[in-house]
Amino acid sequence: MKVVAMIDSFKGCATSEELNAAVLAGLSDEIWTEKCNIPIADGGEGTMAAIYAEIGGTWQKVSTSDPIGEPIEGSYLLSSLDGQTIAVIESAVFIGIHLHEPSDAVIRQASSYGLGKVIQDALTHRVTKIYFTLGGSATSDGGLGLLQSIGATIDASLGNPLLSVQSLDLTGIQDVFKDVEFIALADVTNPYLGKNGFAQTFAPQKGASEKTVVEMEEHAQIVAKEILHFTNLDLSSISGAGAAGGLGGAVMLLGGKIAPGFLTLQQLLRLEEKLQQADLIFTGEGKIDEQTDQGKVPYGVMKLAQKLEIPVIGLCGSRTVDIGKMTEGTLGVFSIQQGPISLELAMEKERTLTNIQHIAQELSQVFMYKK
Amino acid sequence: MKVVAMIDSFKGCATSEELNAAVLAGLSDEIWTEKCNIPIADGGEGTMAAIYAEIGGTWQKVSTSDPIGEPIEGSYLLSSLDGQTIAVIESAVFIGIHLHEPSDAVIRQASSYGLGKVIQDALTHRVTKIYFTLGGSATSDGGLGLLQSIGATIDASLGNPLLSVQSLDLTGIQDVFKDVEFIALADVTNPYLGKNGFAQTFAPQKGASEKTVVEMEEHAQIVAKEILHFTNLDLSSISGAGAAGGLGGAVMLLGGKIAPGFLTLQQLLRLEEKLQQADLIFTGEGKIDEQTDQGKVPYGVMKLAQKLEIPVIGLCGSRTVDIGKMTEGTLGVFSIQQGPISLELAMEKERTLTNIQHIAQELSQVFMYKK
Repeated sequence: MKVVAMIDSFKGCATSEELNAAVLAGLSDEIWTEKCNIPIADGGEGTMAAIYAEIGGTWQKVSTSDPIGEPIEGSYLLSSLDGQTIAVIESAVFIGIHLHEPSDAVIRQASSYGLGKVIQDALTHRVTKIYFTLGGSATSDGGLGLLQSIGATIDASLGNPLLSVQSLDLTGIQDVFKDVEFIALADVTNPYLGKNGFAQTFAPQKGASEKTVVEMEEHAQIVAKEILHFTNLDLSSISGAGAAGGLGGAVMLLGGKIAPGFLTLQQLLRLEEKLQQADLIFTGEGKIDEQTDQGKVPYGVMKLAQKLEIPVIGLCGSRTVDIGKMTEGTLGVFSIQQGPISLELAMEKERTLTNIQHIAQELSQVFMYKK
Repeated sequence: MKVVAMIDSFKGCATSEELNAAVLAGLSDEIWTEKCNIPIADGGEGTMAAIYAEIGGTWQKVSTSDPIGEPIEGSYLLSSLDGQTIAVIESAVFIGIHLHEPSDAVIRQASSYGLGKVIQDALTHRVTKIYFTLGGSATSDGGLGLLQSIGATIDASLGNPLLSVQSLDLTGIQDVFKDVEFIALADVTNPYLGKNGFAQTFAPQKGASEKTVVEMEEHAQIVAKEILHFTNLDLSSISGAGAAGGLGGAVMLLGGKIAPGFLTLQQLLRLEEKLQQADLIFTGEGKIDEQTDQGKVPYGVMKLAQKLEIPVIGLCGSRTVDIGKMTEGTLGVFSIQQGPISLELAMEKERTLTNIQHIAQELSQVFMYKK
């Protein structure tokens, strides 16, 4: 019997690989003679680790500036795929929301500028492809910071350039990605502007006051109009341009494309091949709810498993009663909590790994009874 | 396929019958063509309801005094079994810990006196057998209150008679149960005295201060010595004499016997017969922990199921990692919580019934896959 564990990281608690390992440790070796730990992500945190687990590579350290301009050191992955050198950059490592307590002051200051240096470092290694994750950013600068640092001339004061932008000239960025495929991974499809745009949808979660949101939206409208005028690129209608505070739009301007996170990883990690002949798959995420079927890991795994006719069990820290399309494609989605508990205690890594190991063990007993 | 739900009440939240019904409502009627809801208890709360569900009967209302002497009205069950009239009395209905906020003042006042009137009411109906549950009492009076009210002469002030007892004369109770089988149901085996006795083990949970516990133990020692002298009954060595604050000892003095709660109900409800041919059993209790295998419902159900070779799944509000012997005899024991939650919210009945229905549904899908 073959079992696969492919659980997204429980953010702020345990990595995909740790959770998979705990689940598999709970299962009888006699019954489950083949156990596969497949680290996975949806294009956010854990993407580099998932790709590293599949194709290896080296970690490149870069010093740059964090969202509010303070020095930060972080790594990206340099690897080899089909004879080509590729880079995998998680933008949140350098401009992540976890770096500073979200507030209106922070978001008014936050810029994606620091990412430019990371991308340029990758370019010096003659990469032909860059995977660039958009999830978990602290910024809502319309991607202007990144454009500045890559070579665009943008007339704006220090801090969040979107709030003070006077003019922009994109001539300097035209040839940067001439010979490089630049693929941004997103798990959202929001456009640049409007009620589903980055300002109105995501900025409040990142600390923006109502006033700041209005200001951002106004400036973003002007920026998008300018861009449409000079490049014929209509950010307002492009799916994903609003990801990561508009960083998705910047990726488009740089000649890149936006790809769905899980599906891209599915291909890159040859998931379909790896799931062949599996008798049971465990997937999961910290929270499983009615949004999960919008491209999150458990949904992606479930779709693949349905195609291959393999049963799936979901595990999570918490779930809602309504889990959308996740209901029909799984045998069940189980919270690992063992009783009433505070969020703080539930987030403890050791407790989480113990709980997930136990529940996987018992679920596999229920699953295997008289098989 | 036949499925049985036999879950003990989640105390203060939902009854056995409600929980069973929710579990069964979650299961596919197409697969589970026979669904059995068997209300169950371990000799504490829910015992009357479990017996009523099996053999019916009438509810007898009695007005008496509660633990602190205030008027209380409650019911016991009068029923017919094998041509005989029997009574089932839950002592906690009249002297239960839920009636008053536990405190040292309450326990120093609390007496089991009010139970005498209930028993005498049953005797007027010419019962030949009384089942008398000991669980959930507010009292730690060594059973002296009950003895007083049945006819013993006990020299003591008002309030908890154990704390002021000067002498006792048991002549008046000798013939009360001459023609009646008096069976107390207990889920504990504690003796009357010592570190496992009622004062030291249970009184602190009922609000007693350290000083009160010492006082109770001293008086209980004297009482037990008197009793040994006059009756040759050594309460210090009798298993269960310490149940319900020493009420178990009073039962012995009245010529009754103490029987294990679940096993007595198992026989009375013909559980073994009802479980025949079942393909799956759901059992459970509010909390499942390392004490559950000391005669609680889930353990009793598990033992029976083991004998009949039927798989068992446990459901609970909360569980510990270590659940003693429950591990080896069940496929798994699952908490119904869907994520981090406060005890207060977790105790809401509607939420509990929704959660248990969903988890039972999903567990049955895991269980049934390719069967």
